Amino acid sequence: MQTIGAARRALAEGRMSARALAEAALARAQDKAGEGARAFTRLYADGAVHAADSVDSLAKAGGTPAPLAGIPVSIKDLFDVAGETTLAGSVALKSAPPAAADAVIVRRLRAAGAVLVGKTNMTEFAFSGLGLNPHYGTPASPWDRKTRRIPGGSSSGAGVSVADGMALAAIGTDTGGSVRIPAAFNGVVGFKPTARRVPAAGCFPLSSTLDSIGPLAPSVACCALVDAVMAGEEPLPLPQRPLAGLRFALPQRYVLDGLDAGVSAAYARALSRLSAAGARLVELPLAELEDIPRIMAKGALVTVEAFAVHRKLLEAEGAKYDPRVASRIRLGANAAAADYYDMLRQRDQLVARVSRTTADYDALLCPTVAIAAPAIAPLERNDELYVKTNLAVLRNTTAFNFLDRCAASLPIHRPGEAPVGLMVVGEPMADRALLGVAAAIEAALASD
Amino acid sequence: MQTIGAARRALAEGRMSARALAEAALARAQDKAGEGARAFTRLYADGAVHAADSVDSLAKAGGTPAPLAGIPVSIKDLFDVAGETTLAGSVALKSAPPAAADAVIVRRLRAAGAVLVGKTNMTEFAFSGLGLNPHYGTPASPWDRKTRRIPGGSSSGAGVSVADGMALAAIGTDTGGSVRIPAAFNGVVGFKPTARRVPAAGCFPLSSTLDSIGPLAPSVACCALVDAVMAGEEPLPLPQRPLAGLRFALPQRYVLDGLDAGVSAAYARALSRLSAAGARLVELPLAELEDIPRIMAKGALVTVEAFAVHRKLLEAEGAKYDPRVASRIRLGANAAAADYYDMLRQRDQLVARVSRTTADYDALLCPTVAIAAPAIAPLERNDELYVKTNLAVLRNTTAFNFLDRCAASLPIHRPGEAPVGLMVVGEPMADRALLGVAAAIEAALASD
Repeated sequence: MQTIGAARRALAEGRMSARALAEAALARAQDKAGEGARAFTRLYADGAVHAADSVDSLAKAGGTPAPLAGIPVSIKDLFDVAGETTLAGSVALKSAPPAAADAVIVRRLRAAGAVLVGKTNMTEFAFSGLGLNPHYGTPASPWDRKTRRIPGGSSSGAGVSVADGMALAAIGTDTGGSVRIPAAFNGVVGFKPTARRVPAAGCFPLSSTLDSIGPLAPSVACCALVDAVMAGEEPLPLPQRPLAGLRFALPQRYVLDGLDAGVSAAYARALSRLSAAGARLVELPLAELEDIPRIMAKGALVTVEAFAVHRKLLEAEGAKYDPRVASRIRLGANAAAADYYDMLRQRDQLVARVSRTTADYDALLCPTVAIAAPAIAPLERNDELYVKTNLAVLRNTTAFNFLDRCAASLPIHRPGEAPVGLMVVGEPMADRALLGVAAAIEAALASD
Repeated sequence: MQTIGAARRALAEGRMSARALAEAALARAQDKAGEGARAFTRLYADGAVHAADSVDSLAKAGGTPAPLAGIPVSIKDLFDVAGETTLAGSVALKSAPPAAADAVIVRRLRAAGAVLVGKTNMTEFAFSGLGLNPHYGTPASPWDRKTRRIPGGSSSGAGVSVADGMALAAIGTDTGGSVRIPAAFNGVVGFKPTARRVPAAGCFPLSSTLDSIGPLAPSVACCALVDAVMAGEEPLPLPQRPLAGLRFALPQRYVLDGLDAGVSAAYARALSRLSAAGARLVELPLAELEDIPRIMAKGALVTVEAFAVHRKLLEAEGAKYDPRVASRIRLGANAAAADYYDMLRQRDQLVARVSRTTADYDALLCPTVAIAAPAIAPLERNDELYVKTNLAVLRNTTAFNFLDRCAASLPIHRPGEAPVGLMVVGEPMADRALLGVAAAIEAALASD
């Protein structure tokens, strides 16, 4: 995978044109032997070439290029693009009116020079962590492609688009892990910012309390650059953190239960490398994590909020939904306002309580997903397996959405092995600091 | 009424001791012919004298006094004071454990040198704008005292404590008008900050989305000083705004419907003075205000949130509640989570929409309350009259809690007439700017 930094240098030095970059990305997306047909719900073949050409002609005029000038970027199918109906991986919205304006992040990406290559496939309405989509097909994760394993979700096409070079960065959303899980299963970096940092206007909501908009890309620096653009911040270099002297907390029990052998081994190997590089690792019980399922015992936040958003559409077009998505959204119908209110307040208290415990550390570390990507076909056939696998896949990531954190997932598997992600979790709103720490970890793991 | 500024100068010049100030406030509160017995639920007679003595002895040591050094301040019965059970105007909490710590604002007031004289009476659990309390009695507003008119609520004792010189400032809370209504009915200034500016920790909640903690005091400058202390800000002088050149929007219809003749006359008089002083007055339809009752058609925000807070206590001790309070809180029992969620989202959208309309003005102006303070006795007897009057009293103030604003109420009646308040409404989080504008209005009205 080519990084954004390498592509920017090639463009600046005239070794590559934006048009060539766009055409290479589009060629991979259109390769009939590849996953493009399932990774994208819509391809901007002409638009991307036009946008790339104007970047190339601007470059000839000289001056400092915009931060993402000429970089091919994919966006998840739930972002508004003016003049297009936003489908959100569903067929229930086919007759909805076209979006009147670009989503805020789409506008910011375009203004930063990004070349939008297309909209990526996703779990319908972003409601599940596996990435299965019965309407548009399910793209396979890059590892062991003959078995066809799940790409992780809900930003399924996003992960595959980066892993397969159909884009240098993909924009996903993460409500319970939907950026980090596909990052882990596709062997790329994913970054979930603190939810309120990136504006959600023009993004089809799943849970407006938890929805976070974040990038998947080949490196932490790529993610940091795209994140700064989307957050409307100056894309400054990350803080340089020498790994020696950083203190990492390792949560126990809750996030370590039932790890696959491969996940366990990759995680242990990563920790020993970080320790060898001078980082201090401290086991932290963090028993507060076990309060999360207790607080959500009367119904998950996301179920309540998704039901509120979907109830009219479910009534009119419910038969067109993936039944697994519709039935789970309908669980929110009977929730009481007082229970939802209590849940929000208990969450606020838990967020504050956990931050008192973790504020002394530079990050928390744990596996992004407890298991390796399972095969698609058995999950399509078996409802019980689907539910059980979905819970297992989402467990670790969801905990940190609930705790209002920012977090990155970094690939830590060896070449040829099943992709495994290391989750690096920061304090609420300390996104740039966390990205600096993640970059230090990435460098230490790469130097091995 | 003595202002805090005048008292500070008298203290600084040795013309007055903090002890004498405290004793004068306590004497008024303990005057059997006065309203103290109903204005306070608890008097800190010894504590206030001790605190005042230590201010006096600190003053002898020299140095700049703390911003509220020696100033007698009352606090509403719903703030935690370490070691005391917080009653919130109820008898249902009598057996609750004592508070472990002072509320944040109590701690900040003490640290600023304030002398706490006592806890003031309130509508039980702050749930109504009239100020009636069947458990601790209802203090009468200062005007036409032989009729015994309502003090306004829920911070009923707060308003009376300032009007009658039992404190130089009173701390109230305002969820739907509970600082501004008693300010209007007691002829004092009241300030409701943007809700999230002053920390609510240690304040018994009514509606955590809307609850705002604010002062009632003789002048805008008094309110600004106390507000800065409670918000944890440096108590800097207010911005000086010459009235000539300020632009005020006058919302129509919704806030002008059914005004008492006296309210109407005082409001018209105030506007013509402001206009004569060079302010520009612009009539603004602000039809968006009519969306507020529509958004809350399935139940008010406050009802849902109060039910969530009260449901356990209502089950255990419901028989001890004022039946008018208990029955209205119970309306929140059947609210659906999705409806509550929709209400919060529609509120966010309305707040943004109205701010686009009003951002060009220095403030909105309207009467604080549409009617003059009615007599207490008929309201105690007649449920229907109580409900109707409560809605009429709360209408104008509640609109701006819903719109997430800061707002002050300034007295605009002539001496000897029924007290009338002018509401001066600012943009969300523009609290200091609004206070500067309110001070300019106060000065223009006083110079007449």
